[in-house]
This record gives sequence, C-alpha cells and structure tokens, in this order.
Amino acid sequence: MVIVGGGFGGLRLAQKLADAPVQVVMVDRNNYHNFQPLLYQVATGALEADSIAYPIRKIFAGQNNFFYRMADVKGIVPATNTVQTSVGDIRYDYLVLATGSLTNFFGIESIEKNAMQIKSIPNALNLRSFIFQNFEQALLETDPEKRQALLNIVVVGGGPTGVEISGSLAEMRRHVLPKDYPELDLKKMQIFLVEAGPALLGPMSKASQEDAKRYMDGLDVIVRLNTAIKRFEDGRAYYSDTEFIPTENLIWAAGVNGAAVPGLPDELVTRNKRINVNMWNQLPGQPNIFAIGDVANMVTPDMPKGLPMLAPVAQQQADLLAENLPRIIRGEAPKEFSYLNKGVMAIISRNKAVVDMPKDIHFKGFLGWLAWLFIHLILLVGFRNKVVALVDWAFSYFSSDQALRLIIRPFSRKDMKDDKGKRAAEHATATVQYNPTPPAIQEPAGQPTPAS
Amino acid sequence: MVIVGGGFGGLRLAQKLADAPVQVVMVDRNNYHNFQPLLYQVATGALEADSIAYPIRKIFAGQNNFFYRMADVKGIVPATNTVQTSVGDIRYDYLVLATGSLTNFFGIESIEKNAMQIKSIPNALNLRSFIFQNFEQALLETDPEKRQALLNIVVVGGGPTGVEISGSLAEMRRHVLPKDYPELDLKKMQIFLVEAGPALLGPMSKASQEDAKRYMDGLDVIVRLNTAIKRFEDGRAYYSDTEFIPTENLIWAAGVNGAAVPGLPDELVTRNKRINVNMWNQLPGQPNIFAIGDVANMVTPDMPKGLPMLAPVAQQQADLLAENLPRIIRGEAPKEFSYLNKGVMAIISRNKAVVDMPKDIHFKGFLGWLAWLFIHLILLVGFRNKVVALVDWAFSYFSSDQALRLIIRPFSRKDMKDDKGKRAAEHATATVQYNPTPPAIQEPAGQPTPAS
Repeated sequence: MVIVGGGFGGLRLAQKLADAPVQVVMVDRNNYHNFQPLLYQVATGALEADSIAYPIRKIFAGQNNFFYRMADVKGIVPATNTVQTSVGDIRYDYLVLATGSLTNFFGIESIEKNAMQIKSIPNALNLRSFIFQNFEQALLETDPEKRQALLNIVVVGGGPTGVEISGSLAEMRRHVLPKDYPELDLKKMQIFLVEAGPALLGPMSKASQEDAKRYMDGLDVIVRLNTAIKRFEDGRAYYSDTEFIPTENLIWAAGVNGAAVPGLPDELVTRNKRINVNMWNQLPGQPNIFAIGDVANMVTPDMPKGLPMLAPVAQQQADLLAENLPRIIRGEAPKEFSYLNKGVMAIISRNKAVVDMPKDIHFKGFLGWLAWLFIHLILLVGFRNKVVALVDWAFSYFSSDQALRLIIRPFSRKDMKDDKGKRAAEHATATVQYNPTPPAIQEPAGQPTPAS
Repeated sequence: MVIVGGGFGGLRLAQKLADAPVQVVMVDRNNYHNFQPLLYQVATGALEADSIAYPIRKIFAGQNNFFYRMADVKGIVPATNTVQTSVGDIRYDYLVLATGSLTNFFGIESIEKNAMQIKSIPNALNLRSFIFQNFEQALLETDPEKRQALLNIVVVGGGPTGVEISGSLAEMRRHVLPKDYPELDLKKMQIFLVEAGPALLGPMSKASQEDAKRYMDGLDVIVRLNTAIKRFEDGRAYYSDTEFIPTENLIWAAGVNGAAVPGLPDELVTRNKRINVNMWNQLPGQPNIFAIGDVANMVTPDMPKGLPMLAPVAQQQADLLAENLPRIIRGEAPKEFSYLNKGVMAIISRNKAVVDMPKDIHFKGFLGWLAWLFIHLILLVGFRNKVVALVDWAFSYFSSDQALRLIIRPFSRKDMKDDKGKRAAEHATATVQYNPTPPAIQEPAGQPTPAS
C-alpha cells in the first residue's frame, strides 16, 4: 500500500501498521516530518528548524515493512491503481492520501505573489530572513513612509497561527529588537492582527477569545476585527478600495485548503479542496482509496462542515484506519470513526496561553502556558529535539531573548516566483525522464511476499 | 573607522575597540559570525547551523560605538577613503580588511562548476542536502555505474578540513546510513581522500600525519596521496587524462585564496590574493588601511610564505591592532606583531584526534579528542550554542547517530549557477540605486563626536 504524506496522519498510520501484513510505501517531497504547530517559533527565531523536524527514515529505522520514496506526487490514476510522482509511477493495492493542507489565498493574486506564509520549514526560514532583512533596510531608508512600511508587520487571520505569531513578534519587539537596533525608533514599529470575523480564535470559547484579545492589547498588538485585506502591493495592504496599512511584511494566516491530489472524480473534491470520505475514511466509490487528516472531509451530525483540521483528528483517524485496513483486507466490516476532543489551545506569549478543555473547562495565563509547554514537548519527535527545544525555551524564558536571528539565506520575492518556476520545470523534466517501470523496491529478504 | 568582515579577526578587533575613541562600522554580507572550523559538522548533520553561528548585532548589543551594516563590499577607493557596497558608499578614516579567504579552484572550470565546497553555512547545508538527495536517487537508479557514482564521495585536499570531513562521512557510513538505507548495499559506497602532496595534514608533525593516515585506513577511507584531480564532469573525477573515480559527490577542500577586495594597487595583492602588510598589519603606502587574518600576507623571517591562515593568527593580529590603532591616531609608534603558536589539531572521528603542541609535544586518540572537544566548546560564541552543541555531541557520542539529516532546501547544481547570476544581478541593481551620501549612521545621543 502507498501512503502519500508524512505529516501527523501519515506518520501515525505507517507506525501503527508496523506488524500488519502489508508493505508500506510512504511518498513525501520532504525527507522529514515537521511539527507544524511550532513553525511560527522557527519563523520568529525561538527554535531552530532542526528541532521541529525529524528524518522520516530515522523514525522508521528497523521497521521492515516500511519503504520511503522522496518525490512530489503529481496525480493519481484510480483506474490503473497508480500514483504519478516526480520519480516515476508507483502502483498500489491500497492508497491513503494524507497530504494535509495548503495556504488558501482566496484567489487574490497580489497576496499570493507578495505575502509570506508559514506552512513549511522553508516558509518559516524565509519569513525569519525577510523580517530581519527589512530591518536592515529600514536603517538605510530616508523616506519616512517607506521606512514605516519596512518596520510594520501585518498578520492576517485571527486563528491560532495568527495569534501565536503576532504575540511572538510583539515579544520580539519588546525584548530583542531594542537591543539589536538601538539606531531605530521601535516605538514606530506597529504590529497589526487583522481578522475578517468578529473575534479572535473563532472556534474557541468566548472566554478564550476575550482573554486572547486582552493579551494582544497588553502586548500593543493592534487588533482589527471585521476587517479583510483585499489587496497587497507596493508596500500597502488594502482593507478597502482606498484605505491601507503601509507594510512590506504581510503574513497570510487567513485560511487553508485541503491539498487534494489531481486525478480524483470531481464530485469527491469539495470547494475548499478537501476529499469527501465516509465514516471509515474511505472515498465514496473508490473502495481502495482512503484520505485522513486535513485533506479528508469527514462530515458528522455535529460537524456538518467536516471535522476540524487538527493534528489529533489526523492521528485518531490514522489509529482507526490502521485497525480497519486489516479488517477490510480480510473482508470484515470496518469500525466507524468518532472524534475524541481532548481540548484546544493557543499560546500568546511568555506566561500566557488559553486552553479550552472538554466540558467547558477553560484555563489561561501561566497555567495555560505550562500546559502548552508540557504538551508540545511531549509531542516533539525524538529525545534530542525535546532537549534542544527545552534548552531554547529555557534560555528565552530567563533571558527574554531569542537566540536565532540569522539571515542564513537572504530571501527576495523574486526567489518566491523562481521557486514556482523551478518546481514547474522540474516536473516537466521528470515527465520526460518518466520511468515506465515502478521504482525498484527491494523486498526484505527471507520474508513472505507482502499481502499488499 | 570601517571593518570589512565579521570573522574571527574582525569580530575580535571590534570587541577590543569597545572603549576606544572611535566609531566602528562593521560591514559583512551575513548578519552573523560563523565558526568556520565546525562547518564540516553542519555538512554531515552532526550540528545544526544555528549552533555555530551568532548574530553580529547580538554580540555587540550595548557597545555604543559599534554600528553594523549588512552589505556586500564591491571595492574600495583609497584616493577618496571610500568603501563601495551594495547599499551605497561608506567613508572611512581608517579601514581594516578582515575579509578572510575563499575556495581556490586553481582555475579549473569543471570543478568550480560541479564541486561542492564548505566555506559558508549555505555551502554546508547544500552539501548535507546534496549527499542525502543522491542517496535517495541511488535507490531508484538501475544502471550500476551511475548508482556507484551517486554513492561514492571524493574529498579533495588532505588538510584539516579534508581529513575531518572524510572521517565524519566514514562514521556516517558506518553508523547512520545502514539504519536509514537498509535497501542499499553500503559496502559498495566508497569514500576517497585525495591529496596532491605526499602526506595528509601537510603542515603538522610527521607523527600526526602518520596517525591521521592510520586512522583513515581504520575507517576504510581510501587515501590517495600524490594524486591531483584535474577535471570533474559527468560523474567522473579525473586524476589523469583518462583515469577517473566515478562520483557525483566531489568535495573541494584543496586550497583557499585570500579574499582581496578590488581597488587596491596591484603590487599589494599576492598571487593567491592575499594583501601584503607590514609587521603591524598596515598596507605599504596606505597608512590608513590595514588587513588582518587570512587575507593579510604578513611575512616573517621564519614564515617566508606568510603566516598560516588560522583563527589564532587573525585573533592575535586583531588584539595587537586594537592596541596599535589608538597609538597610530595619537602619532605614536605601533608595536610589531609576533605570532604565539598555541598548537594545531585535527579531529578524525569519535575518540580520535591529533594535536601538535609547541615544543614537539604531540598527542592523539581519545586524549586528543577530549582536547578538541573542550577547546571548540570554549570557542563557540554564546552560552546557548555551547549547550546545544554539547547536547548534540553527547547524543551522537552515545548513540553513534547524528540527529540532523534533513533536506530542508533540496540543492541542484543549477541553483549554484543561479546564485552567481543572482548575486551579479543584485550588484548591478545596487549600482543603479547608488546612494551618493553614505548610509545614515545616527550617532548615539549625548556622546561626544567620535574621533573616527
């Protein structure tokens, strides 16, 4: 069987299938699993990239039924049970799509072209470089309006990512930047958090929403609710046809789409690119294709818009699918999924977080922050990463400083376009070099032929 | 005064001038100081990039006479006391060139185009990505000759860098790769260390040279002495017109040139691009220009070819120049430099290093390794970096594993060419945007006008 994607869902599924009578082939364009909830900390220099990522091959070292292929998936052909990838075609008996989600720019071209995002480690490193580059440039800029635009940061989207990155940037403005840039008047630097809806942290409790707003105010983050950014160009983020915030730094955290894979029947893909699945994550009419996690659109009576895009949903679906797959292979009836909500949380800054637990239990402040710290340390893959993250957090806690503000690869918007061009070019080449036989996967010696 | 370069020499000089009556402007294209002796560990995934680098602004936080500008230096115009940079011209009273060294490809175009090098953090990260990408590709390659070329690694240059990276790669082959790539026959992977001269570690003692050779043999590194690579293309590293080693991975550590800056009189620049200086690091005929460290060619009776390119030389020259500059400003006679050799060392692998101390004291093995570890921990800038490096080293020591093998930004040789093109394009733009007034440097309020 083939699993596309090594995120929370794909990883968990492959691990749970360690003793199942199947051969598991995981395809991912990155040779590492990354811990997305902490990407914003890489972007603001609180953690290094290596701490929140873990090599896929290392995770599965010793799991004999596991094979990894580093490749971009271009599409699937259900009729021939084939996944088309940048390194050739791969056949499957069973296919699990665990491709996650992508930033949703809502079709606004100027934003897609000019905004920063935080969906991957290169994204986060680019954002880190870009903010510090703009500070360096602000030092040299003599036009006050242009300087203001270089200093200002606009975060769009009041969900957890938007709240977390705004809080983190505000802390950086307070504790780190004055020491690094004594030549700049940092009172002029403004951080905006812009949300189209009426409240921050939309899906959380009213208490958490209000606490988050109050914490933001305390950090001097300018929160603009019921406000949508419609256009972003020439250092101006427009929230109406004529009104704008001057900024070169716009971080787009306003929404995501499912990362649906080309080749599925149209009726299976929703408007926001999630893939419809039944209660055991199977695609309707495609008995050997499954989707789990963010990309799967599973509708339940109390969640008519589909289950939320959260890591625990992906992991719980993976757990169940690992039980169901052997059942399905044996011709038995699969079990239905039910989501166990263990609570949601968002961190705002040092000592401040909001946590909603089931049964309307809500806590916040230092206690919330401790809970956040504890849970994220547990979830990080690998002992080394836990220790290094703890070291980094302890340092920044006691010194109010963040260690990592290196511009390792200077970023320019030109690169962003180049990246897209290059990726397209690579695909084109890959099609030419197309390998008609599936990539050789050596079967472990002395083992029975895998069932799948 | 202006210091070009934030390496060991530039950094030390600026720190020692903290209380001197001068305004210090440091120009460097990177906003961080990096610890070059450990770059090879970043390349092999033993350390993360953030551990061996430290933001320049953070090092100088609180030093009121210090200003940093992130810029590429394009040239100097001694007649007008001007440094030309990518962000405009900067005037100086006194100029110190601490630009270090660059890889010397000896004019061999195919090597410059296709080889990897380890002179910067992006270099090291590219090398890490490239080796692991080639392993992923080897899994898919059916042509045995091409697969062999993807697996083989050729290190050119038997100096400390070449020895250290070969040893590190051999350890990776022994302990890390078999777990990650059970599908590959790693006995077929060959690591070559090719040296044009008759011994490894040329400038070290005969005892160290022989120990290094023996350690390499023990690690199954194939050492080829008296051998020069003349051409590298199409997966073949030629050591004569027709004989070659099949490899896609050639690491060029065969030599460096000084990073002389354009604009100096020709007679001041040596054939290997170092800048002639007198015994107090002043350029002959240029009383207000100095050069220190790798770029400075200081000839002494016992070092007729110039002092070696080593961090301690740069630091000792910086120490003396920090004393001499105020003397020169006051019209007093400067002191002459004398190099205090504190010993040289090279690490080969876990538990194995060779150390030459003054007075023919030589030690090796575990003791040498402990000395290496201790000294490098002390030298790393910043407490956080020391702790994280210690954590990483302890982990890899006890687990025989290296944590960091992420291909964060896949590397292709095409990028290498693009980088050069882009950098040239940036320079061209910078010249158009040329700012006739020096970049505004605000003087700290309430301070006397700096003397320089």
